[in-house]
Amino acid sequence: MGEYSTIGQRIARSDSFVKVTGEAQYAGDLSLPRMLYGKILRSPLPHARILHIDTSRAERMPGVKAVVTGRDTLGVKIGPLRFRERFMDQPGLAVDKVRYVGDEVAAVAATDEDVAEEALGLIHVEYEELPAVLSVEQAIAPDAPQIHEHAPGNLSRRIALEYGDLEKAFAESYHVREDRFNTHGQAHAPMEPRACLASFDGAGKLTIWTSTQVPYFVKSDLALALGVPASDVRVILPYVGGGFGGKADGMFSFEFCAALLSRKSARPVRIAYTREEEFVATRRRHPVTVELKTGVSKDGLILAREARCVLDGGAYNGFGPATVLLCGIFLNLTYRYGTFKYEGLRFYTNNPVSSAMRGHGAPQSHFASELQMDRLAADLGMDPLDLRLRNTLKTGDVTLNGFKIRSCGLDECLRAVAEKSGWREKRGKLPPNRGIGIACTGFPSGTGFRQRPDLPVYSAAVAKLNEDGSIRLLSGAADTGQGSDSLLCQIAAEEMGVTVADVKLARADTDVTPIDMGNYSSRETVFAGNAAKAAVADLKQKLLEEAAELFEAHAEDIEISGGRVFVKGSPDRAMPFRDLVHAVYLRRQGKPLVGDGGYDPPDKINYATYTFGAQAVEVEVDPEIGEVRVLNVASAHDCGRAINPMAVEGQLEGSIHMGLGWTLMEDLILEDGRVINPSFLDYKIPTALEMPEVTIEHIESNDPEGPFGAKEAGEGITPPTAPAIVNAVYDAIGKEFNSLPLVGSKLLGVK
Amino acid sequence: MGEYSTIGQRIARSDSFVKVTGEAQYAGDLSLPRMLYGKILRSPLPHARILHIDTSRAERMPGVKAVVTGRDTLGVKIGPLRFRERFMDQPGLAVDKVRYVGDEVAAVAATDEDVAEEALGLIHVEYEELPAVLSVEQAIAPDAPQIHEHAPGNLSRRIALEYGDLEKAFAESYHVREDRFNTHGQAHAPMEPRACLASFDGAGKLTIWTSTQVPYFVKSDLALALGVPASDVRVILPYVGGGFGGKADGMFSFEFCAALLSRKSARPVRIAYTREEEFVATRRRHPVTVELKTGVSKDGLILAREARCVLDGGAYNGFGPATVLLCGIFLNLTYRYGTFKYEGLRFYTNNPVSSAMRGHGAPQSHFASELQMDRLAADLGMDPLDLRLRNTLKTGDVTLNGFKIRSCGLDECLRAVAEKSGWREKRGKLPPNRGIGIACTGFPSGTGFRQRPDLPVYSAAVAKLNEDGSIRLLSGAADTGQGSDSLLCQIAAEEMGVTVADVKLARADTDVTPIDMGNYSSRETVFAGNAAKAAVADLKQKLLEEAAELFEAHAEDIEISGGRVFVKGSPDRAMPFRDLVHAVYLRRQGKPLVGDGGYDPPDKINYATYTFGAQAVEVEVDPEIGEVRVLNVASAHDCGRAINPMAVEGQLEGSIHMGLGWTLMEDLILEDGRVINPSFLDYKIPTALEMPEVTIEHIESNDPEGPFGAKEAGEGITPPTAPAIVNAVYDAIGKEFNSLPLVGSKLLGVK
Repeated sequence: MGEYSTIGQRIARSDSFVKVTGEAQYAGDLSLPRMLYGKILRSPLPHARILHIDTSRAERMPGVKAVVTGRDTLGVKIGPLRFRERFMDQPGLAVDKVRYVGDEVAAVAATDEDVAEEALGLIHVEYEELPAVLSVEQAIAPDAPQIHEHAPGNLSRRIALEYGDLEKAFAESYHVREDRFNTHGQAHAPMEPRACLASFDGAGKLTIWTSTQVPYFVKSDLALALGVPASDVRVILPYVGGGFGGKADGMFSFEFCAALLSRKSARPVRIAYTREEEFVATRRRHPVTVELKTGVSKDGLILAREARCVLDGGAYNGFGPATVLLCGIFLNLTYRYGTFKYEGLRFYTNNPVSSAMRGHGAPQSHFASELQMDRLAADLGMDPLDLRLRNTLKTGDVTLNGFKIRSCGLDECLRAVAEKSGWREKRGKLPPNRGIGIACTGFPSGTGFRQRPDLPVYSAAVAKLNEDGSIRLLSGAADTGQGSDSLLCQIAAEEMGVTVADVKLARADTDVTPIDMGNYSSRETVFAGNAAKAAVADLKQKLLEEAAELFEAHAEDIEISGGRVFVKGSPDRAMPFRDLVHAVYLRRQGKPLVGDGGYDPPDKINYATYTFGAQAVEVEVDPEIGEVRVLNVASAHDCGRAINPMAVEGQLEGSIHMGLGWTLMEDLILEDGRVINPSFLDYKIPTALEMPEVTIEHIESNDPEGPFGAKEAGEGITPPTAPAIVNAVYDAIGKEFNSLPLVGSKLLGVK
Repeated sequence: MGEYSTIGQRIARSDSFVKVTGEAQYAGDLSLPRMLYGKILRSPLPHARILHIDTSRAERMPGVKAVVTGRDTLGVKIGPLRFRERFMDQPGLAVDKVRYVGDEVAAVAATDEDVAEEALGLIHVEYEELPAVLSVEQAIAPDAPQIHEHAPGNLSRRIALEYGDLEKAFAESYHVREDRFNTHGQAHAPMEPRACLASFDGAGKLTIWTSTQVPYFVKSDLALALGVPASDVRVILPYVGGGFGGKADGMFSFEFCAALLSRKSARPVRIAYTREEEFVATRRRHPVTVELKTGVSKDGLILAREARCVLDGGAYNGFGPATVLLCGIFLNLTYRYGTFKYEGLRFYTNNPVSSAMRGHGAPQSHFASELQMDRLAADLGMDPLDLRLRNTLKTGDVTLNGFKIRSCGLDECLRAVAEKSGWREKRGKLPPNRGIGIACTGFPSGTGFRQRPDLPVYSAAVAKLNEDGSIRLLSGAADTGQGSDSLLCQIAAEEMGVTVADVKLARADTDVTPIDMGNYSSRETVFAGNAAKAAVADLKQKLLEEAAELFEAHAEDIEISGGRVFVKGSPDRAMPFRDLVHAVYLRRQGKPLVGDGGYDPPDKINYATYTFGAQAVEVEVDPEIGEVRVLNVASAHDCGRAINPMAVEGQLEGSIHMGLGWTLMEDLILEDGRVINPSFLDYKIPTALEMPEVTIEHIESNDPEGPFGAKEAGEGITPPTAPAIVNAVYDAIGKEFNSLPLVGSKLLGVK
């Protein structure tokens, strides 16, 4: 990595200090003078009509300063996808109906959190209970109750894609196999439950600090839902304790309620979710049934693949209309197919809302694909590794559905984990109840698709030179814990030729930082990273032009490196970088040198770059107690260039942790539409003690579209953990499992 | 005023709503989680050596989180004037000596304001009392104690200027007159006592919200005093309740202490002054003795003028080394002189610090000049009005000391107030104990002199087009109540062709807004106003170029007006301004159109523009009770163009109010260096009931250097009130007074 001084270095994150000392302020830590505490009244029923709401008793309670219901709203429906109006289906507060247990019905602001909570109990809601749709089967039934007026048959979205002549390809296949797989819901369970602080000023301007992945979406949604001009909404991103896709939809009801309550009470209002609310009334990973039919040649080439995914969407769309597409198209991100067909169906139910979650459709469909690959290998008498290698995507490929693969290290990833795990020595040869499994993954980074006609898909950045020689980087990117703040500083430092400590980042504030669509579809590294790089390059060019006049040299002959500026080949014509900057500052009368840049992706339908990865997992099964112990995970990931390998490793370990939880422990359990395990006591997430030994290999295919070749590292390695474990369990005990989670009860007494 | 749509309109200020509702947050209203309350221990002695400070008992007190003394500092000395090192004479906390009663010795941060206050009492300071210098006479005495090491003879600064052959001119004069006048101290007494909230984060970055006129000075001073890079200090300007020059010096001790305490305690610290502290330990108007010698021709032409000012500077410099210059040169801003000579001497004393205050030197010297003009008129048998008109400056003049007068409406001002007041009918002809007096004034707006080598003298502005068609104007200008925020919005609206409501201003925040030296020497209208105008012009040009592509027309053929954009002469080729802006927003992928601009004054030694004014005052004297009642004031002011006549009138009335207080009531009384009237009970300021009827005439000389011709309106009309009253009292009772304040005791039993 000799070509760079900062890129590729293992650097402590810029937010480490404030986070370990507890100094970092999250939305729930913030307060303003005269601030009120908001609480939300939720539907106890999965499906009901609201006949009447009486808030008078609550309003009279001492300490209560404002109560709002759907009647106080414009009734505007919101959704993260705005390119079709029917995708916008969720009002900020229920107006006529409630559609799941947890749906927002009213909100109260009071001088104290307990008073607000108590006031909720004084609101009387008269419901007419409606028959509830509690599963996809019930949703499809001919006489099913209709949840949304715009969705007959409770169909949220149907996708149908077909590339090539499937019928012919299956007919010509040496072997065809069909399987059906089921995946379950999973909670995002971020460390920080949602919280926001909203403050309307007397001039009608709303400032809101909120725990979100998408400040610009929140701004746009709030303006729409409140009926105010966009520039009257300012969204500021405090530190955020995790999102994982769950805080990516845009405005949520709590933000809307806080804003409404602030407007009504003329005081700042903070709403902070309890852990229970975070489990019950936010978002979850889609439960998906995947039917997968694959035809292969005798030597294992995939000639035809047909997939059908059926999604339990829950009560509203969220990002779901995208998920049902992604479940299909992400199947194209590991193997070359001769032909491909996909049908996706997302149904509304009266269950909690399903939306984007780390991997966004890929974990469900890769789970099906990677289990079936092992079974196809068995059918063909091939090693599962060899079957995969026979079919992997390569750099330069364009998939049937049009993904342009500019870099692909999937082969190297597979070989690396095989090598690291001792695959060839272990597969089928381990002692009883021990097994090894392999799986791979492909994932995009950064969509070019404009899901909101009123907002561009774009990242911009501004780099400003401070008078003391440091650089202030303004980016609207949303670091919700994944580390983009540090990454952007590293990119900026490398581009300018200074140290990371010299770069100071301004976090997202829609009134201050330039536009960035936020943290979803793993876009920040490529989008915000390229924008930051371009902004600093622009700034550097301007600085070199100023330096050229001071040095009486040509700008292209001047170099910045190691804190010094000098004319190439004239070591005497040099000065400290800081002195140059201060001289320029005074020469320009304090008008700062400012560079700007942006990233506009080349592909407006698909993605900027794609990452790939593989994992080999070794397990031990204890059938006596129904336990699967994951002994170790060998993981390899092609994230392009690893800007900060230490940060990448943190992301990759986190992905494995989440995949492990989804496979073996985590399950958002519903009874009559109600989440019955909404706490960390009942919803089990792996602790550090359950984490296996993980080895990580960086496969650095440097993508031409990525900043310094980087792609993504936070999301794409989530999918393979589940199928690798299930494949390993098969290797250990010879039993096939087609559904998640692989909890003890399924294993008890096996063999 | 038909040429403009917004300029010249009487528009309610943009901050009116939040101020009348009490919603506007001042520094003392702000709080942060874990915030501590800071208090400052002050010297009880006017002059003493600090032998030892024992803070151990205070540190042990429960609730006390940090105690700081001079030992915790780098001992850096600060001052607003940095072009000579000796002008920087005040440490943030006393290190070895205290120099006045109120000097800062230590500070405490505690969980509660009372605890902090109590802890101050537990700090034991051992002083060696030194003989104190309590007057200029004592400071000059040969054996006077020396207050500062660098200042033998306690001389803070001496100025000597001479233009022309004075000796010859006096010899050739028909009449020569010499007088000696005394003016006294006055407190700024802003509605808001000083307050700040300082918060050091774990990364070493300081954010401070403070009640200041000069955010960029505070930033630069704090960086220097704390020994941190400038970009590690962020100064944010909350609403500020008045400054009047008292908050213009830069960093004050309370800001330094809050920052130090925050760094030491790792918690945010707020320090809010009591009213007593605001009176005792801030700044005051310089008491000045003016000796004035003037030679005139037979027909009243001023052939020679010689002035000598002696200033009681108090314990430190503040802006005083400028004041002693300004007392002299501002004498050139009303009349043409054949020759001019000035000597100014500012002495250190152990009194409270004198510094800039509304008018900054001009009230003291114009007081002397305008009294003497009346006496010269009497000596010559002329009407005082005629003598003035004989000598007034005219547009195009360059004064002896180099002021370039690009616009001057002084003649018109004098004629206007004479007309309005009925001067010709009343002067010398009113009933017993009634009198009329006249006086005039000249004042600069916006110095081009760079008083700090590390900072430019400059204002910059950035104008950004929001997606909804509104404009966000970023300016570092400091609106401390005088109304520059509104003024800048009005200038921006006019320049773009939109309404004032479409312009949203970002208040000064050194991390966000572009550079502006702040609110002193009446610079914001001309400097920040020109910068805002230039930024919007730049933005408009860019928008017109985008519009040209959309309309397929030339940019110069497109016009913006009345909320619409159209091609000149083609009424069909038009669209709402908002629609154009949104189309451009999407076309540019959300990258906002941004314009920038700045103002770099042409004159680097003197000023950008000069304002002029006159007042005629009618009084009634009641010798029985020693009362002067001001019956009415006719005021005329040449402020260039009145951008918002209503706002200008507010400033002019405020100036008269302050002049009235200084003349008849206000007096910061010292006994042994101690302020003995530090409260609104004892320090009398005119209330609304004491305000006379005021009529205001706008004399709009449109200055070529001002934005839309505007100059200043907040400061220049302060000086004439005092001499006009004293001249009127002479007209009423025939008695000359040469010193201020003109309080009852001087009048009792007169006549």
